[in-house]
Amino acid sequence: MLVGTTHAGNIGGAARAMLNMGLTRLVLVQPQALFPCAEATARASGADDLLENVQVFDSLQDAVQDCILVFGTTARERSVAWQIFDPESCAKKIKETSGEIAIVFGREHSGLTNEELDVCHAAVKIPTNSQFSSLNLAAAVQVVSYEIHKAHLISETHLKPRHPSAPAKELEMFYAHLEQTLIEIGLHNPEKPRRTMRKLRSFFNRSQPDSSELALLRGILTETQRSIKVK
Amino acid sequence: MLVGTTHAGNIGGAARAMLNMGLTRLVLVQPQALFPCAEATARASGADDLLENVQVFDSLQDAVQDCILVFGTTARERSVAWQIFDPESCAKKIKETSGEIAIVFGREHSGLTNEELDVCHAAVKIPTNSQFSSLNLAAAVQVVSYEIHKAHLISETHLKPRHPSAPAKELEMFYAHLEQTLIEIGLHNPEKPRRTMRKLRSFFNRSQPDSSELALLRGILTETQRSIKVK
Repeated sequence: MLVGTTHAGNIGGAARAMLNMGLTRLVLVQPQALFPCAEATARASGADDLLENVQVFDSLQDAVQDCILVFGTTARERSVAWQIFDPESCAKKIKETSGEIAIVFGREHSGLTNEELDVCHAAVKIPTNSQFSSLNLAAAVQVVSYEIHKAHLISETHLKPRHPSAPAKELEMFYAHLEQTLIEIGLHNPEKPRRTMRKLRSFFNRSQPDSSELALLRGILTETQRSIKVK
Repeated sequence: MLVGTTHAGNIGGAARAMLNMGLTRLVLVQPQALFPCAEATARASGADDLLENVQVFDSLQDAVQDCILVFGTTARERSVAWQIFDPESCAKKIKETSGEIAIVFGREHSGLTNEELDVCHAAVKIPTNSQFSSLNLAAAVQVVSYEIHKAHLISETHLKPRHPSAPAKELEMFYAHLEQTLIEIGLHNPEKPRRTMRKLRSFFNRSQPDSSELALLRGILTETQRSIKVK
């Protein structure tokens, strides 16, 4: 998934990079470049089917709602105590996970906003020269796609999967419920910087609850709300 | 080393890809693109020192004469009974070798000639989708440079660790607090089989909260208890 891409050439370059590595689903979120366009097609260099099947969304939330795992790429160390993967461990994680997974790449100059990163469950950071760390967008897609392809070439490992993680939509409903409950018990002031929720999201994103775990947690929230109102 | 490059943009893109990974010596052999030029500079995106120090040679033999190890990149399986490395093992080999090493990338459309490959000591082949195997030149440079950078990072620590998980004692105190709160909100009947707590423990054990996360979660429990009592 490419968010807010400015240069059409990078969309084409990303499409080529993905198909070179056997990946075929490209999603654009609020592209700033005109698309489709000749420059994207030229840079895609034959990955035409992939470009024709690109989906475009208005918001990242909508784009990832069926995904059970969403990686956000970042060039910086973020202050949030997030789980940060390198491309190799990200690829390994993807291989071990069944269900739809998104890897989100931000704008050429500014990457992803904190709000967009909040939608993600984990971060991927490509190790770079700290003096010159900003990769071209298509190059970053190339590196991550390459690691995914490489991981799939390695003979299958047999890790017993847990229940599949809940899709992003369910997780978001849980966060909304949690935030509402925190407000009701007086812990969380929505006017203040959302540090509390960010920290809680970081914890639960890392934990990847499945649907039945989310149902249990939401049951606790519902009982909490009921208890306050009854008394 | 880039041999016979047709598009100046690819020279700039390769320069950027290299510098992103901490590599600084770019050599051109018989470039077909005009160089230096504005497009190369634009695509280099700030890797100007590297571009200014590019050396240009008329023949690959001349270019590699001081190298003790020369890798030629290839997209095809060659008939020559050569040692073919993938980028990761190539990077490992480079790390183990002291002395000048060259990695030679061929023309955009036709790669390296057999005569040029004869000058090389070994081949590097990037694993790709066999149905769509031709990488953009700068993207190929990106992948190989990335593996070289990664190999050099391995001895150092590069993944930022999370805070250490909380000790078992703290986790048990959290579970006791959680259980007490569940009883107070009426969700949890301690007489019944403890399925609820078991499931919650399984979730939190897997998530390995750190001490500050546990403190936050216990803060929520405390506020929940207080809210019930106040009303």
